[in-house]
Amino acid sequence: MRQIHICEVGPRDGLQNAHQLMPTEKKKAWIKAISETGVEEIEVGSFVPPKLIPAMADTADIVAYSLTLKNIKTVALAPNVKGFERAVAAGAQKITFPVSASRQHSLANVRMEPEQMVEQVRKCVELRGKIGPEIEAGVSTAFGCTMQGEVPEDDVVKLAVMLAEAGVDCVALADTVGYANPAQIRRVFRRVKAEIGDKLEAAHLHNTRGLGLANALAAYEEGVRHFDSSMGGLGGCPFAPGASGNVITEDLVFMFESMGVPTGIDFGKLLEARKLMVASIPDEPVYGHMALAGLPKGFRAAA
Amino acid sequence: MRQIHICEVGPRDGLQNAHQLMPTEKKKAWIKAISETGVEEIEVGSFVPPKLIPAMADTADIVAYSLTLKNIKTVALAPNVKGFERAVAAGAQKITFPVSASRQHSLANVRMEPEQMVEQVRKCVELRGKIGPEIEAGVSTAFGCTMQGEVPEDDVVKLAVMLAEAGVDCVALADTVGYANPAQIRRVFRRVKAEIGDKLEAAHLHNTRGLGLANALAAYEEGVRHFDSSMGGLGGCPFAPGASGNVITEDLVFMFESMGVPTGIDFGKLLEARKLMVASIPDEPVYGHMALAGLPKGFRAAA
Repeated sequence: MRQIHICEVGPRDGLQNAHQLMPTEKKKAWIKAISETGVEEIEVGSFVPPKLIPAMADTADIVAYSLTLKNIKTVALAPNVKGFERAVAAGAQKITFPVSASRQHSLANVRMEPEQMVEQVRKCVELRGKIGPEIEAGVSTAFGCTMQGEVPEDDVVKLAVMLAEAGVDCVALADTVGYANPAQIRRVFRRVKAEIGDKLEAAHLHNTRGLGLANALAAYEEGVRHFDSSMGGLGGCPFAPGASGNVITEDLVFMFESMGVPTGIDFGKLLEARKLMVASIPDEPVYGHMALAGLPKGFRAAA
Repeated sequence: MRQIHICEVGPRDGLQNAHQLMPTEKKKAWIKAISETGVEEIEVGSFVPPKLIPAMADTADIVAYSLTLKNIKTVALAPNVKGFERAVAAGAQKITFPVSASRQHSLANVRMEPEQMVEQVRKCVELRGKIGPEIEAGVSTAFGCTMQGEVPEDDVVKLAVMLAEAGVDCVALADTVGYANPAQIRRVFRRVKAEIGDKLEAAHLHNTRGLGLANALAAYEEGVRHFDSSMGGLGGCPFAPGASGNVITEDLVFMFESMGVPTGIDFGKLLEARKLMVASIPDEPVYGHMALAGLPKGFRAAA
């Protein structure tokens, strides 16, 4: 039935960039509420050094809690081999690596060149062996970079190919700083798909310049069925000034459902989970039109 | 060069629904600033009874002023024959009629059945003769209605055909209350185009549920090149509760320009005109991401 697969990245991408810390117990309550909406995957945290990002210090605890919930795949981010080892130890079912196509962003974000990051990912694929967690590589700044400006499409394609060859299970393309436009989304997804086929999986889009849903539509029409998004549009990138706000889960779900494309997500429960999030970090700016406007009169979810 | 034709409807659709009145002199200054951005058309006001909508009481004066500006087509809305006669007397170069596909919305908005509205439009086409202003009919609530709920696509197609047969120069389809989704936009524009061909011209979209740009993208890909939009997303419909916000001019222009599709609009001047608007009605909520995020690093306008 479900044709769209959503990974809620708010607990990681959102809280990592929030000005307020969400206490661990409230984070758990929010993640539980998300798990009840019908969302398939939750990116619950990041195994980065706690000194760098205090909001992610409880990630091992959060992963352990998330594993007790039903119907959810527990995803964690790792920036290197050390983070991967911690994520595996915690029991994460899927581990995602950010690999910047922009050299400058890569150095700022993970202190490595893109090629060095690919080597880190390759080592993790080897470490995992045959029974470890699923491994995803997200090509960050795939549509432009606040530091470097334009990111050549050739660089993105090359990096995606290197990651597929390194043995990851799936590759995502990320508009980390909200520079993408629909024509570019079509071009780049098409080119990468031509090279790595079904290993190209998710679109990770930001709404910084308001084009989040238009870009998601373009990606959908290019065959993308996996989307990262965050409740209330929380998120951004701490090393990319001006970048703020993932594409908004509530609005993304409404777009697909209204088009007759089922997401498997209950809209009412989504709004409840959003309320819980807002109450837990009340001073944080949140976005999204559906939470204000509500469903259209006579609206029926897609079947 | 210009491939997209934008009609800025803020002075009409925006101010008609604002909580604050914009004084006539400030309205003129704003319209002058809009005319300098490269926007082709401005819907400057509405010839409705001033008692009903005080914000539109100065429309004849505003039309006269707008006619003194360079490079701009002066558009006014008329809800009936009387409004049309006032618009013609004032010198409006293009007159647009709202004709609701939803029976309930039609009665609430103009106190007539849709068929009665078509008759009003037909009379105006006759009155105009051969040298009068351009006449546009906008099919309102073409994608759903807050009162009636679903609006059958057949009703929309039928109404568009009746209006084309009544002799209007062009027909627009309007998502008056922000219910449209991209799949529906594609279907309805395609069906109407099959019936009335090039007489189908503009998409008038709202951003109530965040889908404004995704819907604009879908319309563009169906061949639409004329868009209504409003600076800061001002707008809505006084008789459609829950409806707020036209698609945002700044974000719409950025979407097309970033796709390499020229709009002929200068982004910097657009932001200046927006500032003037915000300063004139400082308590009014305004929307839009581009005014906050700015252009991407190294961005080049489409040529």
